[in-house]
Amino acid sequence: MLTEENVVLAKISEQERVPLVELKELISCGKVVILNNPRHKESESCAVGKNLSTKINVNLGVSPRASDLDEELQKLNAAIRLGADTIMDLSLGDNMDEVRNSILRASKVPVGTVPIYQAAYQVELNNHLENMKVADIFEVIQKHAEDGVDFITVHTGLTRKALEHVRKDRVLGVVSRGGSILASWMYANKKENPLYENYDQLLELARQYDLALSLGDGLRPGCIADGSDRAQFDELITLGELTRRALEAGVKVIVEGPGHIMLNEVTMNVEVQKKLCHEVPFYILGPLVTDIAPGYDHITSAIGSAIAGASGADFICCVSPAEHLGLPDLRDIEEGTVSGKIAAHAADLVKGHKKALQRDLEMAQARKELNWNRQFSLALDSERAQRIFHMKNSTQETGCTMCGDMCAIRIYQEGEERDALERCGRS
Amino acid sequence: MLTEENVVLAKISEQERVPLVELKELISCGKVVILNNPRHKESESCAVGKNLSTKINVNLGVSPRASDLDEELQKLNAAIRLGADTIMDLSLGDNMDEVRNSILRASKVPVGTVPIYQAAYQVELNNHLENMKVADIFEVIQKHAEDGVDFITVHTGLTRKALEHVRKDRVLGVVSRGGSILASWMYANKKENPLYENYDQLLELARQYDLALSLGDGLRPGCIADGSDRAQFDELITLGELTRRALEAGVKVIVEGPGHIMLNEVTMNVEVQKKLCHEVPFYILGPLVTDIAPGYDHITSAIGSAIAGASGADFICCVSPAEHLGLPDLRDIEEGTVSGKIAAHAADLVKGHKKALQRDLEMAQARKELNWNRQFSLALDSERAQRIFHMKNSTQETGCTMCGDMCAIRIYQEGEERDALERCGRS
Repeated sequence: MLTEENVVLAKISEQERVPLVELKELISCGKVVILNNPRHKESESCAVGKNLSTKINVNLGVSPRASDLDEELQKLNAAIRLGADTIMDLSLGDNMDEVRNSILRASKVPVGTVPIYQAAYQVELNNHLENMKVADIFEVIQKHAEDGVDFITVHTGLTRKALEHVRKDRVLGVVSRGGSILASWMYANKKENPLYENYDQLLELARQYDLALSLGDGLRPGCIADGSDRAQFDELITLGELTRRALEAGVKVIVEGPGHIMLNEVTMNVEVQKKLCHEVPFYILGPLVTDIAPGYDHITSAIGSAIAGASGADFICCVSPAEHLGLPDLRDIEEGTVSGKIAAHAADLVKGHKKALQRDLEMAQARKELNWNRQFSLALDSERAQRIFHMKNSTQETGCTMCGDMCAIRIYQEGEERDALERCGRS
Repeated sequence: MLTEENVVLAKISEQERVPLVELKELISCGKVVILNNPRHKESESCAVGKNLSTKINVNLGVSPRASDLDEELQKLNAAIRLGADTIMDLSLGDNMDEVRNSILRASKVPVGTVPIYQAAYQVELNNHLENMKVADIFEVIQKHAEDGVDFITVHTGLTRKALEHVRKDRVLGVVSRGGSILASWMYANKKENPLYENYDQLLELARQYDLALSLGDGLRPGCIADGSDRAQFDELITLGELTRRALEAGVKVIVEGPGHIMLNEVTMNVEVQKKLCHEVPFYILGPLVTDIAPGYDHITSAIGSAIAGASGADFICCVSPAEHLGLPDLRDIEEGTVSGKIAAHAADLVKGHKKALQRDLEMAQARKELNWNRQFSLALDSERAQRIFHMKNSTQETGCTMCGDMCAIRIYQEGEERDALERCGRS
């Protein structure tokens, strides 16, 4: 039957080259999630999960000290142009509602948020985070769902038990903003995590709005020394249990992962998450493979997320060069988006996605032919490749300024061709 | 005895935290190589290999279409400031001798070259590469050694047999400049690789000058489709044999590796190289994990080389954002150097180097304290981190523009501290 849902699934099936029947099976067991709140009419659906190409998310949003809606919309367009599959609006400030709605209305890709930020913002302004009410949190979540937000991060697995490990063992405590809000509230009120305690209510709300839950890792390690530690895995075990409850309730669920961890722990982290969380999509925030490269964390993160993707992570959160230093500007967003796209694409080659392999093959052929325009059109960031090339090469010659006439590709081909001709002549 | 050599080894032993007796043992079996031509008096020694921190090399050099010696010297200083352990001068052009000597005299780190470029340059100018004489090649090598070059790339493993596989199976042929010169010469003259055939002479010359040989992979794959193919491994097997002969002759030897290969083939490549080449140092050129990111190949390469380093590669050749597009400028060199340094450092964390782990730990503590100046001083690129921070944060407040007052680190710590105080009060 040509329902709207079937049209969407048929399109995804074709784009991803996954048979429709297999896609439906993967969705029904939760291994693939379709991000689309029906109220977000401006957006196409985005499918994340098993056997699909690796997706990337780009974080945007104003902050109380740097707030310019127009700039955020520019960032949104740049991110989408460069291949962002989803956007998260992480805004903080008095104009959160306006920014979120503007982004939703302008975005043709699904949009996610972290509602706890908004719930905390008003009380925190008065330095009274402990006064945040549970009802306030759910009110914000419902508002976001009504606005059309497609997925929300909820740090449901951060429990009092897990916090004990943070307190005892950690160098850098809690670095997730949502996690720190909840932890601070839990300390002040001597209560359990309200999103954990009221998880059934959350599931009900999510189902009602066809809202996907992204179970956040509020205890993700913020430094190499805290990577893959007891607090992190305690939270992950809880997230696994909550994932099962979401699956049973028929709610779309994905799970978020670290953070800062050493390179050789990345694959292990993906495998443990996949196992404990019933193979639902894994949304990875980094991982950053070292702490000491502020200004270049799009690169430390691309290293980690490429390995994670190749190991089975489904969804990569891009990190910009401004990470750990301040709010990203337009150029940071561009750089971060492409870095995430590189990681996702490198992972897709490993996952064996034919479209990905084909694109690299075509690039190799364009290089063989020294066909620059074809190379630009196949590049992940065509504009940048073209700009750099034209800046460095003012002449109309075939090679580039790297080698001049001593272009390796040209020298080898001419040698081989001459040899082939001579062989023909002899035969 | 306090010979000059012993002073050097004692210093390396201390810097690398490897006992002197172990270091000497590693050197004697070829698993560690000390790069230092006694004629390069301006330079300190650089040790690469097993149990040592991962080193990085930065490529410089003029080209016939872009030649500015002052700019190359600026690049040299920038690369060294940002952590380059060695420099390779890949210059092409009429002023090759002048550029090489200027770089040697200005460089306090070892300098490598690829002498075949210069041997080929004069004849190729007249489009008669086939006229290059074997004696010319050795004359150039000797001249470089006399000038004080510390290590040279020699594509000794590219044989006629290996070329047959290139011809039959490859998408992109030969992309190594030195490899293409030799291959084209071999086709035209219907002869074997002169560096392979005259390898004993090469060994003799290297020993005479205490020159390290870097056995180049002239058949390194230039695209994902050619990655880890038969031609590449045919050459590697030959390089393994030639490595053994160098070890037997008491010549310092390291081996170069790919190239463009898929992420999941990187570790395998390192392991095969280490096995076939008797665990001599592995000098890795990338690997780039996708072909489609011109303008960002410092990132595709950082991904590959971080994994390679973590898998045991000892020496990383930095790739700049200009790769595949043109000659790198100063900014490209800076970006490429830091990217390589990130990969090397991420690898060193995995290799368990205490200094590396300590630096990340100190960064984590500086972040916990929101001590920005300490963060800058611990950063791989202090200047850039500081510049970005000051651009984005005009106020004197503790947090940054990312979160404003809602800084996760601050919120969590205040919550935890208040809780700890209350617990104390109760007890």
